[in-house]
Amino acid sequence: MPLCVVGSVALDSVETPSETRDNVLGGSAVYFSYAASFFTSVRLAGVVGEDWPSRNTEMLIARGIDTAGLQVIEGGKTFRWRGKYMRDMNQRETLDLQLNVLGDFEPILPEEYQHCRYLFLANGSPEHQLKTLDQCQGAKLVVADTMDHYIRSEREALMDLLKRIDGLVLNDSEAKLLTDDDNLVRAGNAIRLMGPKFVVIKKGEHGAIFFGENETYVLPAFPTPDVVDPTGAGDSFAGGMMGYLAEKDCHNPKTLKEALAYGTLTASFTVEDFSLDRLQAIGRKDLDRRMEEYRKMLSF
Amino acid sequence: MPLCVVGSVALDSVETPSETRDNVLGGSAVYFSYAASFFTSVRLAGVVGEDWPSRNTEMLIARGIDTAGLQVIEGGKTFRWRGKYMRDMNQRETLDLQLNVLGDFEPILPEEYQHCRYLFLANGSPEHQLKTLDQCQGAKLVVADTMDHYIRSEREALMDLLKRIDGLVLNDSEAKLLTDDDNLVRAGNAIRLMGPKFVVIKKGEHGAIFFGENETYVLPAFPTPDVVDPTGAGDSFAGGMMGYLAEKDCHNPKTLKEALAYGTLTASFTVEDFSLDRLQAIGRKDLDRRMEEYRKMLSF
Repeated sequence: MPLCVVGSVALDSVETPSETRDNVLGGSAVYFSYAASFFTSVRLAGVVGEDWPSRNTEMLIARGIDTAGLQVIEGGKTFRWRGKYMRDMNQRETLDLQLNVLGDFEPILPEEYQHCRYLFLANGSPEHQLKTLDQCQGAKLVVADTMDHYIRSEREALMDLLKRIDGLVLNDSEAKLLTDDDNLVRAGNAIRLMGPKFVVIKKGEHGAIFFGENETYVLPAFPTPDVVDPTGAGDSFAGGMMGYLAEKDCHNPKTLKEALAYGTLTASFTVEDFSLDRLQAIGRKDLDRRMEEYRKMLSF
Repeated sequence: MPLCVVGSVALDSVETPSETRDNVLGGSAVYFSYAASFFTSVRLAGVVGEDWPSRNTEMLIARGIDTAGLQVIEGGKTFRWRGKYMRDMNQRETLDLQLNVLGDFEPILPEEYQHCRYLFLANGSPEHQLKTLDQCQGAKLVVADTMDHYIRSEREALMDLLKRIDGLVLNDSEAKLLTDDDNLVRAGNAIRLMGPKFVVIKKGEHGAIFFGENETYVLPAFPTPDVVDPTGAGDSFAGGMMGYLAEKDCHNPKTLKEALAYGTLTASFTVEDFSLDRLQAIGRKDLDRRMEEYRKMLSF
């Protein structure tokens, strides 16, 4: 089943202890789309400026990602982020953030997007996430992401959103902030009571915790020695997860758990190089091979 | 098979955001022994002072733990630690540390301890750990723990120890310090090259990573909403792990993985109350029941 994602499309500049890359392809919707495209067809909605290299769009189209919903604003500049990772790669500092055309972005979904049964509302203003949701009334599964900024500044709209979505995916620090509880197990359950049928708390290199109606479980990250650039790991996780759910056209507990595992493994590849470089170098069979290793790792 | 442990025996004072407990039973050898006693008979070696309440020793004996190696120093005072946990329970501050009789402790193993086939050298000076090892020549499986203080101040003796043990169990921050590498996967493999056949890196609420000759895997912690006092979690983990290995009298890869899982679950009970309170309230069947839940959690 086709999967629709609305989120940021960016030009990132990333500094790691060993290397710096400038103006590489990034943004939540881009990482999400590419990750999901291992599993299903994807429709991307977002906004870029005149400075957006057309080869990026061509690459996404060649991958089978529908970019009809990618608005190009004449005279505008693409959203840019510059970040620096510390030595342990788990902490990063935002050095520069230019919202540019993303600041005025109003999501308008093309007609064919509006009939998508699977919808992911990537990190963005809850008000815009709600507007997107209004355009996609027939969606069977709606999952959203959020971040500290919106938890602090748009709490009311976020609460409205939580009542209307099936799943929420967020970071551990965001879950603590949203609930004012430092125990992630309690925090996850508390967020579920705010509306979503399930909640996934992402813990970066420590994996993810799932909270559903009848079960709570933890899946660890896949241990990779080659962490080059963690940017986009969370969005790749969500993309792998949602892509698998859309492929199976099912989100029962068993399929959700498999989807979380695929999300985990997709993210484990993303961090092994800058931007989409590693994901562009692998195929579905590499994901499936790592899934075999992962299943073996967790069975005893 | 009997299991011998040499380590600290303490009176702890613990402050958590919700409650404070003074002079409760603690210390690495105590947590380890009690955790291991769910699986096998245990021989504890350590030192206490005159102020040590004899009811503590009686409780350990009633549990089937051999305390012949517990030296009581006349006129001496027991090792005392006072710590305070921050709101998120993952960070703690040592408010007071009185080594007392532990400062001059020379491990002397009673005759029957010297023939133990399973030996755990809890956190302590590597020089003393080596002296203990010399007294236990016939051990089939020797595992040690260490800490930042000894990595910094007795690195040479620690390196000698690493060449003579089968396994090392240590915290994530200690693994990074020992190897000067912030990637835990690389750090664990590097420590294995220093001597031990296997290395276990403990990540607290995020579980543990195992490094063996042919495999690296991660096991997540059991997600508990009831974290009351994390003191002793690492020692309980090691106790559950070593206890199970001694019970099975085997440490092939399959048994080691099961042992890590039992260590994880034993620790998950320890943190649910102060001191040994939670462990004293459960039986082996509670561990086995949680093991069923844990296996289910990790299978998909």
